[in-house]
Amino acid sequence: MKRILLTGFDPFAGEQNNPSWEVVRKLEGLLIGDQHQIVSVLLPCEFHRSLQTLEAALKKHRPAVVLALGQAGGRAEISIERIAINVDDARIPDNAGAQPIDVPVFSDGPAAYFSRLPVKAIVHDLQQNGIPAGVSQTAGTYVCNHVFYGLMHMAEKMDYVQAAGFIHIPYLPEQAIAHPGAASMPLDMMKTGLVHVLETILKTRKDMVIAGGATH
Amino acid sequence: MKRILLTGFDPFAGEQNNPSWEVVRKLEGLLIGDQHQIVSVLLPCEFHRSLQTLEAALKKHRPAVVLALGQAGGRAEISIERIAINVDDARIPDNAGAQPIDVPVFSDGPAAYFSRLPVKAIVHDLQQNGIPAGVSQTAGTYVCNHVFYGLMHMAEKMDYVQAAGFIHIPYLPEQAIAHPGAASMPLDMMKTGLVHVLETILKTRKDMVIAGGATH
Amino acid sequence: MKRILLTGFDPFAGEQNNPSWEVVRKLEGLLIGDQHQIVSVLLPCEFHRSLQTLEAALKKHRPAVVLALGQAGGRAEISIERIAINVDDARIPDNAGAQPIDVPVFSDGPAAYFSRLPVKAIVHDLQQNGIPAGVSQTAGTYVCNHVFYGLMHMAEKMDYVQAAGFIHIPYLPEQAIAHPGAASMPLDMMKTGLVHVLETILKTRKDMVIAGGATH
Amino acid sequence: MKRILLTGFDPFAGEQNNPSWEVVRKLEGLLIGDQHQIVSVLLPCEFHRSLQTLEAALKKHRPAVVLALGQAGGRAEISIERIAINVDDARIPDNAGAQPIDVPVFSDGPAAYFSRLPVKAIVHDLQQNGIPAGVSQTAGTYVCNHVFYGLMHMAEKMDYVQAAGFIHIPYLPEQAIAHPGAASMPLDMMKTGLVHVLETILKTRKDMVIAGGATH
Repeated sequence: MKRILLTGFDPFAGEQNNPSWEVVRKLEGLLIGDQHQIVSVLLPCEFHRSLQTLEAALKKHRPAVVLALGQAGGRAEISIERIAINVDDARIPDNAGAQPIDVPVFSDGPAAYFSRLPVKAIVHDLQQNGIPAGVSQTAGTYVCNHVFYGLMHMAEKMDYVQAAGFIHIPYLPEQAIAHPGAASMPLDMMKTGLVHVLETILKTRKDMVIAGGATH
Repeated sequence: MKRILLTGFDPFAGEQNNPSWEVVRKLEGLLIGDQHQIVSVLLPCEFHRSLQTLEAALKKHRPAVVLALGQAGGRAEISIERIAINVDDARIPDNAGAQPIDVPVFSDGPAAYFSRLPVKAIVHDLQQNGIPAGVSQTAGTYVCNHVFYGLMHMAEKMDYVQAAGFIHIPYLPEQAIAHPGAASMPLDMMKTGLVHVLETILKTRKDMVIAGGATH
Repeated sequence: MKRILLTGFDPFAGEQNNPSWEVVRKLEGLLIGDQHQIVSVLLPCEFHRSLQTLEAALKKHRPAVVLALGQAGGRAEISIERIAINVDDARIPDNAGAQPIDVPVFSDGPAAYFSRLPVKAIVHDLQQNGIPAGVSQTAGTYVCNHVFYGLMHMAEKMDYVQAAGFIHIPYLPEQAIAHPGAASMPLDMMKTGLVHVLETILKTRKDMVIAGGATH
Repeated sequence: MKRILLTGFDPFAGEQNNPSWEVVRKLEGLLIGDQHQIVSVLLPCEFHRSLQTLEAALKKHRPAVVLALGQAGGRAEISIERIAINVDDARIPDNAGAQPIDVPVFSDGPAAYFSRLPVKAIVHDLQQNGIPAGVSQTAGTYVCNHVFYGLMHMAEKMDYVQAAGFIHIPYLPEQAIAHPGAASMPLDMMKTGLVHVLETILKTRKDMVIAGGATH
């Protein structure tokens, strides 16, 4: 049985929960197809310890697929991140109080890594199943991008990793109540969406060629 | 058995469906408490015929409660409208091709009617149940406001109507896919929300005093 | 010489200045056409005292035209308010600490008053002059709407008032800096815009019939 | 006398003008400090020809500083782009009808280039001068990012280029009129801002360490 590693984060910025961990924990142990089983891991919302925890999980489980998830409060859709960039620039301190500004994630790494997911096929499949989804051109410069970049950097040298990337998800409805006017998505829809995402990853050999860019 | 009249609209503006009718049709016949039963009526998205249809339904069913629903594409929450204003000002033609500009809904009516719903108690109860909700200070100037104003004007003279008002609901997820970045709410959550709304209307004698305004 | 009364507000909500007073003070004494002169009055951002101050100014100056201005932080254009509603519902306390919720501005007043400005002609003229402008369907439920409603209510009995209404203006650029991503408009453009507005009011006998509504 | 190369684009997406060229053309020939003179060049809004034109201008003028500008319709501030990514993904065809999807700008280039401007010092200086400004984490995937990436890639091998980067600017007010609710900035403020930007580039040896990131 091969492994799919899913990661979610601790709550941050005063939230009571984090949809990324809420959905990831619900998928623990699930089989996708008949050869892949999900392992769910919680990452602290901290620049330093998040990658330590991720590295340990990668080495322990040797997953074929790695999907890291994070909360993008205010976005309305499941957004598949296209690129991770080599910089930390924190507007608010992380959960350990660290606030790095304009420092690289890995000082020996390239400026960026593209996702190793079939980004367009994932968006297309989610939409076909009635779930709002889109491509995102930036994962920000906070712990989410840090983990995304760190994942891609570490996975370069792990030949068992065949697909890896990052997905941002909206607030849960109960979170959105505290943010008047903010979009949200119920947990069940996120969970259904994640299963579609994983199935698409496993079955896609070559990504689709459909527009998913932004003019700015 | 008393009646609750729910109304929803036909699709407009190129949409394939209208969440207001999708949710209202699903509630047809449902009992709320043990004395009230729902009657669901479809209104055309037309200035003229919408109120003709509504008037006929009011006279036929003599409802104790009337709740008109409409789609507010882009809003993220169930929004309880506070006030209906006496003007039609259409940016786009209605489904019959009419586009009134700055004409009153009823030339002998007052400038506005406040909702006769316990607006704050409804918002509070929805939020307590994990459903994003808020007060809206404007229902626009299109067919939704037209029906809201017409309802309040006609219900003035129908002493069997004890509560009446208008609620805007977001896009369905399948609609939002065609509007990148737009918020949405699944049909099940809307349906659950509507039942809460009706229960709150029936049990509330005096509205709650909690802030729900806007600075502008 | 006839009088035009312009009012602006004190800063509120932690701002250092209020664009409404910044622009109104700059127009003090200006002649519009050859028969009208501007009188500028500062209103406190307080529910109670704002209307006391306004009433005193109306009685003292007996203006032919009254234009009250307020700040709408986040809006991008000069927005001409269509309607004032008879309710105070404050999300935040006013500058005197009062926070009325769901109480009428005047308990003996109607639900709403429409603006007595040529709203569409004003928007059209501003746009012709390259200044972003639009119709707004709600002035909120805070001190701005309170003053707008109070103005219309008091002016009903003052036969020297021939035109009266309310206009919301954006942040100044220096304010927007503290609100990342918020729109703004320079003071000079606001000032030029206000002169156009007053000229349009004086020369318009009958408002234009052009769409300016909202679907919701 | 050293050269500063400024570039702006042709109008696109149905616009009558492009603020990037409107402001750049106004600065042609201006001296910044006593050693640098501005050369302004118009780029076609086309994937292929834009970089051909840029390359010719770089070789002809051998500029010490290169600043490419583009329009970001809907943004409210002067936004200094942090990073250019190696992908074209066009939602709409360019002015020559080309619509590349998921192809690299340079197939032999790295995934991304960071700006070679003192991004934080520029934002700080603009704000100090009352001009809304911010850091942007994405320049999109259209012709703007294409030119930004191409500029950084070509400038790598041109040792006379000491600073290079990309700046997005808002709609002009006259453009915003056709996009109700969209933010804008007057041409004069853009022009003043650009001069501040260039002065900051020339005088900054080491960028400031102030937060300018995004959580997502």
